[in-house]
Amino acid sequence: MIDNLWLIGIGTGNPAHVTLEGADALRNAAVILLPTKGDDKEDLAHLRRAIITASGSTARIVPFEYPVRDPDLPYMERVAAWHDEIARRWIAALGGQSVNGPVALLVWGDPSLYDSTIRIADRLSPKPAIRVVPGITAIQALTAAHAIPLNTVDGPVRITTGRQLRDGGLPQDETTAVVMLDGLCSFQQLDPEGLHIWWGAYLGSDKQLLIEGPLAEVGEKIVKTRAQARAEHGWIMDSYLLRRI
Amino acid sequence: MIDNLWLIGIGTGNPAHVTLEGADALRNAAVILLPTKGDDKEDLAHLRRAIITASGSTARIVPFEYPVRDPDLPYMERVAAWHDEIARRWIAALGGQSVNGPVALLVWGDPSLYDSTIRIADRLSPKPAIRVVPGITAIQALTAAHAIPLNTVDGPVRITTGRQLRDGGLPQDETTAVVMLDGLCSFQQLDPEGLHIWWGAYLGSDKQLLIEGPLAEVGEKIVKTRAQARAEHGWIMDSYLLRRI
Repeated sequence: MIDNLWLIGIGTGNPAHVTLEGADALRNAAVILLPTKGDDKEDLAHLRRAIITASGSTARIVPFEYPVRDPDLPYMERVAAWHDEIARRWIAALGGQSVNGPVALLVWGDPSLYDSTIRIADRLSPKPAIRVVPGITAIQALTAAHAIPLNTVDGPVRITTGRQLRDGGLPQDETTAVVMLDGLCSFQQLDPEGLHIWWGAYLGSDKQLLIEGPLAEVGEKIVKTRAQARAEHGWIMDSYLLRRI
Repeated sequence: MIDNLWLIGIGTGNPAHVTLEGADALRNAAVILLPTKGDDKEDLAHLRRAIITASGSTARIVPFEYPVRDPDLPYMERVAAWHDEIARRWIAALGGQSVNGPVALLVWGDPSLYDSTIRIADRLSPKPAIRVVPGITAIQALTAAHAIPLNTVDGPVRITTGRQLRDGGLPQDETTAVVMLDGLCSFQQLDPEGLHIWWGAYLGSDKQLLIEGPLAEVGEKIVKTRAQARAEHGWIMDSYLLRRI
């Protein structure tokens, strides 16, 4: 049983993205639930440990393993079943015991943005008090790395996913879109006319890659660079901003 | 002349929103350009000073005064003229001298989001090297305070302004919208049917106010609460998330 669950946004891979509030929360947590990811994301696991150590936290580290998504289920059911199973694994990892003090989870970016941790936490019964510590998202890390504004003056911004972009395209009246969770470089399906792209991977880290330019000119370069980097590191996290210019 | 200009996102009013990178940048800046705002935002000026002091920065503080926007100009021209004038005032405040070391500006939230500092910096000539340090935006502070996800599963999000919402409404196919820069509670002009609102003001600070519920039920309460708080404190910064449920 968990009385207090803290979801701590830790930014996009630069340990210095951690906020003073985040570092303080890591120090005051009694237990930190830490995923043991598979083979190829070893450096992310390493980075999480480095962030905990740097904060001065002496919390008990409790490992848990992410389940595999069931590929036979339709998308929404698959996601729901996966969330249910993760909530069960958190409780199992704690040995079914009550924890005397706050239980913390480290979340890449911010817990609100294309992350499941809040939804998984809402499945716990009895429901713990949930505290969310905001963190730097890939969107801020992307615009900061390129030193560009997210929005045009008074202009709206669409945050969306690769899947949405493939299904719905980019409406003509959309000035700015940020695309996340796009493993397929879905910008290739757009008419590049008038579109400028700012792309970034491993944002904030030593591995950071940045490419920007008219989509028609740099689209192919992004696809190649992304494939090479993914092959080299075994994983990639990237996102991009599209703007009609 | 400024060789290196650092735009440091400092979050939404909670000194603990500052990231380790932000605190480090404040410590390593040679000069900090600090606005002397008018009468009624005294507590924001105080908070900026507290953040600088807490970081351990020994940078030279150079004050500058924001100009007044010319109400006779059309919106876009007014904004452009205002940006030009601020860039001139930065340089004038530095006495037209070259600064030996980085010049820093503290930016509420994140420099990318509905903030002019990057656009003003782009007006400087000769152009300095610009470093943007990402910060917690009002969007993260809002979703964290309410402990809600920003997006639905795989769903897109529209970030927009009060002006845009008044002009264009909220399209029927829009699941989630975050509205900023809305001094007029423009949600009052929407058909509230099926809309849920999460509103927050002074996010992250001791003054923080939160209201959430079906828009039809809590809209009026938000309007009243906002007006009272603004009268009490002399200023208000607020934002809200709308979701079709």
